[in-house]
Amino acid sequence: MKYGIVLFPSKKLQDIANSYRKRYDPNYALVPPHLTLKAPFEADEKEIGDTVKELRKIAKQVKPFKLSVYKFSSFAPVNNVIYLKVEPNPELTKLHELLHQGKFKEEPEYAFVPHITIGQNLSDDEHSDVLGRLKMLKIQHVETIDRFHILYQLENGSWTVYETFLLGEGRD
Amino acid sequence: MKYGIVLFPSKKLQDIANSYRKRYDPNYALVPPHLTLKAPFEADEKEIGDTVKELRKIAKQVKPFKLSVYKFSSFAPVNNVIYLKVEPNPELTKLHELLHQGKFKEEPEYAFVPHITIGQNLSDDEHSDVLGRLKMLKIQHVETIDRFHILYQLENGSWTVYETFLLGEGRD
Repeated sequence: MKYGIVLFPSKKLQDIANSYRKRYDPNYALVPPHLTLKAPFEADEKEIGDTVKELRKIAKQVKPFKLSVYKFSSFAPVNNVIYLKVEPNPELTKLHELLHQGKFKEEPEYAFVPHITIGQNLSDDEHSDVLGRLKMLKIQHVETIDRFHILYQLENGSWTVYETFLLGEGRD
Repeated sequence: MKYGIVLFPSKKLQDIANSYRKRYDPNYALVPPHLTLKAPFEADEKEIGDTVKELRKIAKQVKPFKLSVYKFSSFAPVNNVIYLKVEPNPELTKLHELLHQGKFKEEPEYAFVPHITIGQNLSDDEHSDVLGRLKMLKIQHVETIDRFHILYQLENGSWTVYETFLLGEGRD
């Protein structure tokens, strides 16, 4: 089964992201707007029990943090992904690191550039057209993130949440 | 903000449900296959904090239980909803009751008929045609449910998971 680890921004920011995703992201209907903390990975049902226990421990080690979105950007020329750029933040970086060491050790595919995808699989022309227009917009949004989620993928490509992890100690 | 409380069956059962939902359920892309425990309700951000605390307590009072799906059925003539019928179960009934008393007190719109919707908004003709064919199929599926989720609805009608609640005591 394929699993992924993400955080969901607030409804407000998800609604903003979806206003673009609807037109520019083929994954629009498959998963809510999100920030990927760990790229999709395969695990069987036995492994996932241990993984989840580890994720509960990791969540306790990271404090809730401010997520700040401050501009539109793109991964071009690597790929034509347009995204809301998220300001790096020590707690977010720590969370990402904890999800890529120990039990979770593997080389991340790319350096961690925290982002919320709003467009992908765009042709070069559409990409530069859309990005050019978005670059002229101002966006400034700050909110608090206090949780993340592990999801699994169904056969139709959509994702279902398996479990939520609350950041910080003594959250119950 | 609109919230709902559901449980997600296993990936296997979600995949089965989606094979029908894709054709017969306009909500296919808005939410994964689910069993509704509490109909959508409005709450603001302050209220939801208390609601979530209460849900954590309720989760501890209900043991993980067997979810058994044993036939296709329909709510017609009340409405043309086709669903996978879930066998009533004391723990599931208890969970539903706890979600409709105390802080959550309200008259449920209908008696609790646990189900996983696979088709809705069908014309009378399509409904009887589809239901007739499904009634001839055998389905027998049992699995363990050990969690439920609270979701909120985005402006586009889709649902994002806010938090997971693990059933039973001492689950961490």
